[in-house]
Amino acid sequence: MLTVSTTSPAQLPLGFRWASVTAGIKASGKPDVALAVADEPAVAAAMFTKNQVTAAPVQLGKKHLAATGHKVRAVLVNAGNANCCTGEQGLEVAQKSCAAVGDAFGCVFDEVIPSSTGIIGVPLPVEKLLDAIEPAKAALGSTIEHADAFATAIMTTDTKRKTASASFSVDGKVVTLWGCSKGAGMIGPQLGPPHATMLVYLFTDVEIDVDQLQPLLEAAVDDSFNAISIDGDTSTNDTVLLLASGKSGVSASGNALTQFTAALTEVTQSLAYQIVDDGEGVTHVVRLEISGAATKEDARVIAKSIANSPLCKTAWSSADPNWGRLLSGAGKAGVPFDASQVTIFIGGLLVFDRGTRAVSYDEAACHEVMSARNFTIAIDLGAGDAATHFLTCDLTHEYVSINADYST
Amino acid sequence: MLTVSTTSPAQLPLGFRWASVTAGIKASGKPDVALAVADEPAVAAAMFTKNQVTAAPVQLGKKHLAATGHKVRAVLVNAGNANCCTGEQGLEVAQKSCAAVGDAFGCVFDEVIPSSTGIIGVPLPVEKLLDAIEPAKAALGSTIEHADAFATAIMTTDTKRKTASASFSVDGKVVTLWGCSKGAGMIGPQLGPPHATMLVYLFTDVEIDVDQLQPLLEAAVDDSFNAISIDGDTSTNDTVLLLASGKSGVSASGNALTQFTAALTEVTQSLAYQIVDDGEGVTHVVRLEISGAATKEDARVIAKSIANSPLCKTAWSSADPNWGRLLSGAGKAGVPFDASQVTIFIGGLLVFDRGTRAVSYDEAACHEVMSARNFTIAIDLGAGDAATHFLTCDLTHEYVSINADYST
Repeated sequence: MLTVSTTSPAQLPLGFRWASVTAGIKASGKPDVALAVADEPAVAAAMFTKNQVTAAPVQLGKKHLAATGHKVRAVLVNAGNANCCTGEQGLEVAQKSCAAVGDAFGCVFDEVIPSSTGIIGVPLPVEKLLDAIEPAKAALGSTIEHADAFATAIMTTDTKRKTASASFSVDGKVVTLWGCSKGAGMIGPQLGPPHATMLVYLFTDVEIDVDQLQPLLEAAVDDSFNAISIDGDTSTNDTVLLLASGKSGVSASGNALTQFTAALTEVTQSLAYQIVDDGEGVTHVVRLEISGAATKEDARVIAKSIANSPLCKTAWSSADPNWGRLLSGAGKAGVPFDASQVTIFIGGLLVFDRGTRAVSYDEAACHEVMSARNFTIAIDLGAGDAATHFLTCDLTHEYVSINADYST
Repeated sequence: MLTVSTTSPAQLPLGFRWASVTAGIKASGKPDVALAVADEPAVAAAMFTKNQVTAAPVQLGKKHLAATGHKVRAVLVNAGNANCCTGEQGLEVAQKSCAAVGDAFGCVFDEVIPSSTGIIGVPLPVEKLLDAIEPAKAALGSTIEHADAFATAIMTTDTKRKTASASFSVDGKVVTLWGCSKGAGMIGPQLGPPHATMLVYLFTDVEIDVDQLQPLLEAAVDDSFNAISIDGDTSTNDTVLLLASGKSGVSASGNALTQFTAALTEVTQSLAYQIVDDGEGVTHVVRLEISGAATKEDARVIAKSIANSPLCKTAWSSADPNWGRLLSGAGKAGVPFDASQVTIFIGGLLVFDRGTRAVSYDEAACHEVMSARNFTIAIDLGAGDAATHFLTCDLTHEYVSINADYST
């Protein structure tokens, strides 16, 4: 039986330690450097942003994974500066920090994965980052508090720490998956193999090899982090990293594999939900269920078109059941369908029935269900058998304020 | 010599009359039915929305143009109701209104082009529309005041009437092109042949046949209405209609063709600019100049990705030179380029120079140029020789207020 938690895991995956320190990179003075270390090289699966513009740590992380055959000893994350569009100098900063972590833990530099999140185009102060490594090493530990400290230090405009865990037993041995994520704006991930300034770190103690782990991660990400959007803006730094220590003594095969896959699905979907729920200025989380599409890709394209439509998003902010905007949002996606075959339900209420407003349409009732923080919009295109789900949110004054905030 | 005006044309194209009346379709009680009539059947070129969901008048207008070989006697426009997603009943309303106009002017119903703009999914009250036709006929006239009345009645959330005209002389004979447009939200046109709740009506008295007129319109629209975005939401009703009466006695060939093409470019670009300038909540109009692309289509895709990025649009609202968002917006478009070859100028100031922040970058100076209502962002991708321009705007609190306004 799978046990899932977003707050208090019964235990953490064996073989890892976590820490955070304050290096002075965030202007707020909050913890901004997070370090995770595996006791021995862990098997790694990863996905990074598909944005054409990628940050130095993303470029370097891909190289390191390739060089080691996906073996990772340590992950060094800084928040407050994306180290993106920083040229050769930015790449050197990332390289130096990996080398310093390697020195600190007696491993080669390419067993270290760097990550950064924050402002683009401003040089990352290398001394601050390097000076943080020894204190971070001294602070490492394997308790919930240590893991939570890691999850907290990676936050930027996030208002909540985002963690999730799942565990299951096989023959008396417990396998645990724990993960954390950050991201509240510039969220429209398009992650590719090996891939997100959404940052997601997942740790497990299942025994598994990389050829098995990478496709499991890709499938899970496709239905979680690749199926969410806050503003449709794909970051230059998005990263999802999954490390497996093998320390549970349970091999990912048979029933254990089935359970691990379920655990990965639960944890990634929970972390993805938490990102949207904590999105900048969000007051409504909207689950789109698109069915009756010719292909899953068609369904996804239509879901994204609605998810990122300013007119749909503003209507949701006031619980306005303006279903015409939903249809228009679907229709502009470029995927062929026939409006006379389409049905739309909002929060379970039929609003549009094959070409016209539903006879039973009740605007006030619809407004009522949309007044909840969470609601579902289900659209059947009547064009096939494929379906998908997608999580998105409303567009509010607060989003504009957060992102237009500029002082000379 | 071409004379261009956005306010007071020296004269109007010969062979047309215009009128508007108040039919009670707009809740505001303002004029909401506009009628334009050609003395004799005019040659028509048209483009309609590529949204998969199209309003009844769009469906019917396409049919009518096909049936008559692009001959048009009258255009009947209502504002306040889009007659979209209104099923068979909606189509009947549009048909009945065309038949009634046909009766009133002694022409066949398919020489009448219907247009609607406003809320989607609410039945259009047919009696109000039919009752408006006789008063509109009685109000027809060929003065500036009549044309302006037509341009005013088609407005919805627009705050300004949008008109433009151009004229030129050939052998003492004057050719005139006058047009009007409406649209302030749900503006992200993708117009296809024959194709936009942007509505644009253009009237000219040049002599031309439809085989010549349609490609001229398509080329002009591609660089004007298809090169603008307010919110990226492509409407179900977008329409551009160009009518040529031939009454100037000047045939569109040789120098006259060159001048007519120039006039069409000037008028469509002016009307497109006026739409963005009057966009919902707009405080900055931003001209994107994308160059160094492999193809014009690549340049257009990148321009649209930036134009519709909420993070770019919110930064513009506060004159924030956050060029990292520009790069990220370009990079998420899916078009390959190398950031180390990219240069970015904002208002003529170099901000990003082949991979890193420009040495000369001066944030305060940049903020200063962006404080103007109009500014240009020029991005060279260093990936080829193709270029395009695109007009867009910022995203403000006011946009959210306008579109989230909902009362139960």
